Amino acid sequence: MQVESSRIRIGMVGGGPGANIGESHRMGMRLDDRYSLLAGVFSRDQERSRAFGHALGIAPDRLYPDYRAMAEAEAQRPDGIEAVSIVTTNETHHPIARAFLEKGIAVICDKPLTVRLDDALDLYRLARDTGAIFALTHNYSAYAMVRQAARMVRDNSLGTVRVVQVEHASGWASEPLEQQGHKQALWRTDPAIGGEASVVYDLGTHAHQLLRYVTGLEVTELSAEMSTLVPGRRVYDNAQVALRLSNGARGSLWACMAATGQEHGLRIRVFGETASLDWRHEEPHHLAVRYLDGSTRILAQGGNGLATDAQRVTRVGLGHPEGFIESMANLYTDVAEALLRRRAGQPDAVEDLGYPTARDGVIGIRFVEAVAASHAGSGRWTDASIDI
Amino acid sequence: MQVESSRIRIGMVGGGPGANIGESHRMGMRLDDRYSLLAGVFSRDQERSRAFGHALGIAPDRLYPDYRAMAEAEAQRPDGIEAVSIVTTNETHHPIARAFLEKGIAVICDKPLTVRLDDALDLYRLARDTGAIFALTHNYSAYAMVRQAARMVRDNSLGTVRVVQVEHASGWASEPLEQQGHKQALWRTDPAIGGEASVVYDLGTHAHQLLRYVTGLEVTELSAEMSTLVPGRRVYDNAQVALRLSNGARGSLWACMAATGQEHGLRIRVFGETASLDWRHEEPHHLAVRYLDGSTRILAQGGNGLATDAQRVTRVGLGHPEGFIESMANLYTDVAEALLRRRAGQPDAVEDLGYPTARDGVIGIRFVEAVAASHAGSGRWTDASIDI
Amino acid sequence: MQVESSRIRIGMVGGGPGANIGESHRMGMRLDDRYSLLAGVFSRDQERSRAFGHALGIAPDRLYPDYRAMAEAEAQRPDGIEAVSIVTTNETHHPIARAFLEKGIAVICDKPLTVRLDDALDLYRLARDTGAIFALTHNYSAYAMVRQAARMVRDNSLGTVRVVQVEHASGWASEPLEQQGHKQALWRTDPAIGGEASVVYDLGTHAHQLLRYVTGLEVTELSAEMSTLVPGRRVYDNAQVALRLSNGARGSLWACMAATGQEHGLRIRVFGETASLDWRHEEPHHLAVRYLDGSTRILAQGGNGLATDAQRVTRVGLGHPEGFIESMANLYTDVAEALLRRRAGQPDAVEDLGYPTARDGVIGIRFVEAVAASHAGSGRWTDASIDI
Amino acid sequence: MQVESSRIRIGMVGGGPGANIGESHRMGMRLDDRYSLLAGVFSRDQERSRAFGHALGIAPDRLYPDYRAMAEAEAQRPDGIEAVSIVTTNETHHPIARAFLEKGIAVICDKPLTVRLDDALDLYRLARDTGAIFALTHNYSAYAMVRQAARMVRDNSLGTVRVVQVEHASGWASEPLEQQGHKQALWRTDPAIGGEASVVYDLGTHAHQLLRYVTGLEVTELSAEMSTLVPGRRVYDNAQVALRLSNGARGSLWACMAATGQEHGLRIRVFGETASLDWRHEEPHHLAVRYLDGSTRILAQGGNGLATDAQRVTRVGLGHPEGFIESMANLYTDVAEALLRRRAGQPDAVEDLGYPTARDGVIGIRFVEAVAASHAGSGRWTDASIDI
Repeated sequence: MQVESSRIRIGMVGGGPGANIGESHRMGMRLDDRYSLLAGVFSRDQERSRAFGHALGIAPDRLYPDYRAMAEAEAQRPDGIEAVSIVTTNETHHPIARAFLEKGIAVICDKPLTVRLDDALDLYRLARDTGAIFALTHNYSAYAMVRQAARMVRDNSLGTVRVVQVEHASGWASEPLEQQGHKQALWRTDPAIGGEASVVYDLGTHAHQLLRYVTGLEVTELSAEMSTLVPGRRVYDNAQVALRLSNGARGSLWACMAATGQEHGLRIRVFGETASLDWRHEEPHHLAVRYLDGSTRILAQGGNGLATDAQRVTRVGLGHPEGFIESMANLYTDVAEALLRRRAGQPDAVEDLGYPTARDGVIGIRFVEAVAASHAGSGRWTDASIDI
Repeated sequence: MQVESSRIRIGMVGGGPGANIGESHRMGMRLDDRYSLLAGVFSRDQERSRAFGHALGIAPDRLYPDYRAMAEAEAQRPDGIEAVSIVTTNETHHPIARAFLEKGIAVICDKPLTVRLDDALDLYRLARDTGAIFALTHNYSAYAMVRQAARMVRDNSLGTVRVVQVEHASGWASEPLEQQGHKQALWRTDPAIGGEASVVYDLGTHAHQLLRYVTGLEVTELSAEMSTLVPGRRVYDNAQVALRLSNGARGSLWACMAATGQEHGLRIRVFGETASLDWRHEEPHHLAVRYLDGSTRILAQGGNGLATDAQRVTRVGLGHPEGFIESMANLYTDVAEALLRRRAGQPDAVEDLGYPTARDGVIGIRFVEAVAASHAGSGRWTDASIDI
Repeated sequence: MQVESSRIRIGMVGGGPGANIGESHRMGMRLDDRYSLLAGVFSRDQERSRAFGHALGIAPDRLYPDYRAMAEAEAQRPDGIEAVSIVTTNETHHPIARAFLEKGIAVICDKPLTVRLDDALDLYRLARDTGAIFALTHNYSAYAMVRQAARMVRDNSLGTVRVVQVEHASGWASEPLEQQGHKQALWRTDPAIGGEASVVYDLGTHAHQLLRYVTGLEVTELSAEMSTLVPGRRVYDNAQVALRLSNGARGSLWACMAATGQEHGLRIRVFGETASLDWRHEEPHHLAVRYLDGSTRILAQGGNGLATDAQRVTRVGLGHPEGFIESMANLYTDVAEALLRRRAGQPDAVEDLGYPTARDGVIGIRFVEAVAASHAGSGRWTDASIDI
Repeated sequence: MQVESSRIRIGMVGGGPGANIGESHRMGMRLDDRYSLLAGVFSRDQERSRAFGHALGIAPDRLYPDYRAMAEAEAQRPDGIEAVSIVTTNETHHPIARAFLEKGIAVICDKPLTVRLDDALDLYRLARDTGAIFALTHNYSAYAMVRQAARMVRDNSLGTVRVVQVEHASGWASEPLEQQGHKQALWRTDPAIGGEASVVYDLGTHAHQLLRYVTGLEVTELSAEMSTLVPGRRVYDNAQVALRLSNGARGSLWACMAATGQEHGLRIRVFGETASLDWRHEEPHHLAVRYLDGSTRILAQGGNGLATDAQRVTRVGLGHPEGFIESMANLYTDVAEALLRRRAGQPDAVEDLGYPTARDGVIGIRFVEAVAASHAGSGRWTDASIDI
């Protein structure tokens, strides 16, 4: 049918009752009407999974007992899903993604890619070898003004980048929520699920990817310390990392989940030779550019003269703020377009400011492991590079 | 089918190629997955309308030559639309809305309700008499933090309201865009379509409704002057209005479409006995509360302790900005819930902070006419009240 | 002595114990070391006046029983004061200023110039006829970034000015402080001292002068309403004024002393053809310039590329905020320089962005009277022009 | 004479023609009228020094050829100076301060205290042994809202401090100004004068002292890297330091003189158990307090309910911004009061939030040396504590 032809058939693993992130992904799919959500496993509890999928309008025969059954069955249907969205806890990303990749189904996976580097590399290689599209939902890099920032750096609007300051310091877990039964806090502070370096997996990888996306630079070496701010917590909830970047620039990354009173706390500042950029997630539709003369120019999403990278992910226009859900939709829509090109037999678009992939996921896990290694080595400068 | 049962069957009139507002409404429908868009007339040009509707996935037999045919046919289908979204130019709202109301189909109409007061009253009465739901898309009042503001006023967090300052001063038409063929500028500066008091119809009614929504007060008298800032423009693009409110408070309303450099420029400040509120559309997920001691408290969407009115229209949570599209979705979802209650035979919910209705539309047009009358009378204080 | 030659010999009337404004003026004198405070009457209570003057280091024989004695005696001393600073309540400005002008002593008078227009004209003419320097301490126009703004308008950086929005809406008297014995509130809410239009005399004249200073335009007609927000108050504490300006532009002025929660609340926005300016007293070392493309440039005091008008009143430099006291010092220092030129027999400097004079004071009182007349005439458009 | 009795007799070394900082100190002295500047050596060039002192109104016989002569002569005059302000380049602070301390003359010394730790200790001990007052002009800690912040931490308004983020990242030397003959840049980028760790001496010590002042905590260990951002520069112009604090909290300090586009860039954030504080020098009259519920309270200087520590250094009141010069005056006035108590034979006040002293200077130099040592040791965690 004509209608379906413009929509990607997608399934979801995870994201059931009480999981905020699943709904964010679904809104991201819906906003631009580029997806039909047709299959899923929404919970390990089959009853809950079915009820949830039913409420989403998914046909009963496509609500599966587990992800393996789903990958198997969907791969055999002529109208099977073309992509799967994986929004489960970190340690399960690897086997689930693997199951779908093996069937040639595209994967849109929540970050971090995996917990261990070899798993990350495995997925990266499998995606490369199967040719399947693999997107990682570092959605912050899909904000219009982040893309504007990235383009300005590439267009040399700042001159050589000299210093980068990035932080993702949220206040969400400033209290010992895990002791109060808070669902997300429970798994994120469980070393077996969220990882001992929990804050780095969760928030640090966002900050790290944002830095890479905006500057086009890689972290080559780092010196890190992790710490636990909330008494009794079983994982690290704070990390301070000094960075050396691939062009010789310096930087600093702060990841924290107990920064009391911060809303979400993602911010990047890039200081170049002739100007600097400042983007804060609390006001994502603006980008500040600071000049040598001490003046600041605030660019607004939808304004005239912005880069096409920003324009193409702007829906309404100047003065009509877009936010978190739109950033998720930007990423999902980019992936839909890539999948439609594949479906139409067209070559992949060469897009330098597109969606993050498994390769970015690998580099992110490499970063987490380098942070842990430096921390274990009392902050010694540690290689964070990877040849990939 | 089960799936349809949770979604409202809706059609659309207007909002075709090049019409931003139509897409905003459709995104508003989609975001929370509460609507199925099943019928439409998207353009007066039948070819364009069909192609556009086709791309939206609407079945060919439900793409109609005109709104009358659509109302007629849909009313007779067992699976006909339950609601219609009207996103055409101002002067056509009345006949279109009338056609659907007469068939008992709910109407979601873009603002302003009509151009003339008697047309507005006609729709109001028809909706009342038929019992059809009639919503007016003053979506700004559907922002979470606007609802928080409205609740705080009602909860007496400010004490008696003394002064209100509201402005919708956008820079969008600071240049003579109509001379450059800009589509929206062309009709908004055409006295026959946008009205001579164009800026009051378009932006003034938003500001007026926001004031009423937040404060719960009515404008009883006003003193106004309209003016034309852009040389050669055929309508008023600026209006300054002094207000007397129903509790004796004073206010001021500024509507402008040529406020150079402003992004969108909607802002409301409410000054009470013990505190004041300040909300700006440029940063809609925050609300500032100022106190007698000179301190300011900035409330953030998703934070703990906000009113349930704000919570129930918050999707993601603290630090995850929501914007214009979400505000539209809030309004559409409120209407969907009202329609679902009707469908289920439940009584209407009594909601003091819900979506605007035809009654609000009438009061808005009464405001526009009072502004015009005061202007014609050299700013004399003019009755703006209406018994409805 | 050499030292004295670079300092102006000055006296003060008013500004004694408990009078904040007196100390602000004295700090304004001291900051740039351009004045020696040598004589004074600081209180109507002679004991208090003497003790206060003594603590300031003023010689006993120059602490006078009243201003007439002071004017008389100082005029006869070879080392008598060259200027007097008058910081008394409004209704006394006229006789005090007159006494010193008659002796050829320069006057630096707190605003408003007088309570009645004929008194204002009298001082204006006397200053003109005697050739004495007469400065009015509308110090807000002496801020560096206000002068930058004024220069940018004159340099046509905004194109033709179309609309001006100015407000001085403070929260200082949001409570009935006069009922609690608050000294300043007592006299400002006494119709016989502060005037019935108290808020217009006190804050409205500041806003009005700021508008004139920045835009170079005059208010030709106005439509006004005054009101009393705090129950039981005997003067108007709120005024809303619509403006027609001398180039045909429109404007609005809001003066309020009961705007709950506002700190000081002085703000001016000037909208031109190609850009707009926005200056707020709460952050006085910055000036926002907004452009047609939706971007905003924030200029910072001390930055490179600012007008010399701003540079010459910047003491420290970029990133070193200057505030209220510095603005007062800017005004005092401008006057000192004018007096030194006189003393040196040099012609007056022709400065288009200098300190306000008696002429500005007359225009200010004309404005107050036009506001009162329009208010009395139910908001009718009232002539506010004066040929002076 | 009565007048002199309330003013401290002071002299100055350095701060002559072209030296901004000297004028800032003099304005700091004058603002509250607590000092008489009576002696000085303003330049190594005697002619320039004399001409400059003469213009300041200093008697010719108290304009000395060098600081030794000044210390000698003033110590012998019955009306000799009680204090000296030292505003010379870093490496000269030690001998100059020593000369005056030896004569029992109080010292107000610009920061950093010295270049080398043993010199710093020498001054500290000499001041301790002679009982002379020794103030160090870390004036940022004298801002009203910084004192408010410090009091709130001590009053446990934040609960236990967990993380501190402090930065002094200015853009002033983003260009190679030293190659353009810029006076301050020349000496600050000369390793022999500004020190190889120039940015740490100049800006890092301010940030470090601000952290200590606000939190009451000491830096016990640090891991640092310095770098040179501007090609060709002979000193380090960037430093990133990870901190361990005396209560076990963590922190980060960033000092930079080449942070393109930053105005002055001093900011401190203190994250506690129940709230966090945020103070920025660009808007010094406000202090943001963030809470667990995601709301932010902005306290304004002069508002009701602030700590007396903030009130006693507020001159005008709410909505009347005070800035850099006022902060300098706060420090000078605190010292004047201490000196007046001495003069009156009263015991020193026990003030926990007073002016910084030689002890703070020693701790600051200890910090600089620890940064250099950690840097030399490839970022190894280095002891920064000192028993003093």
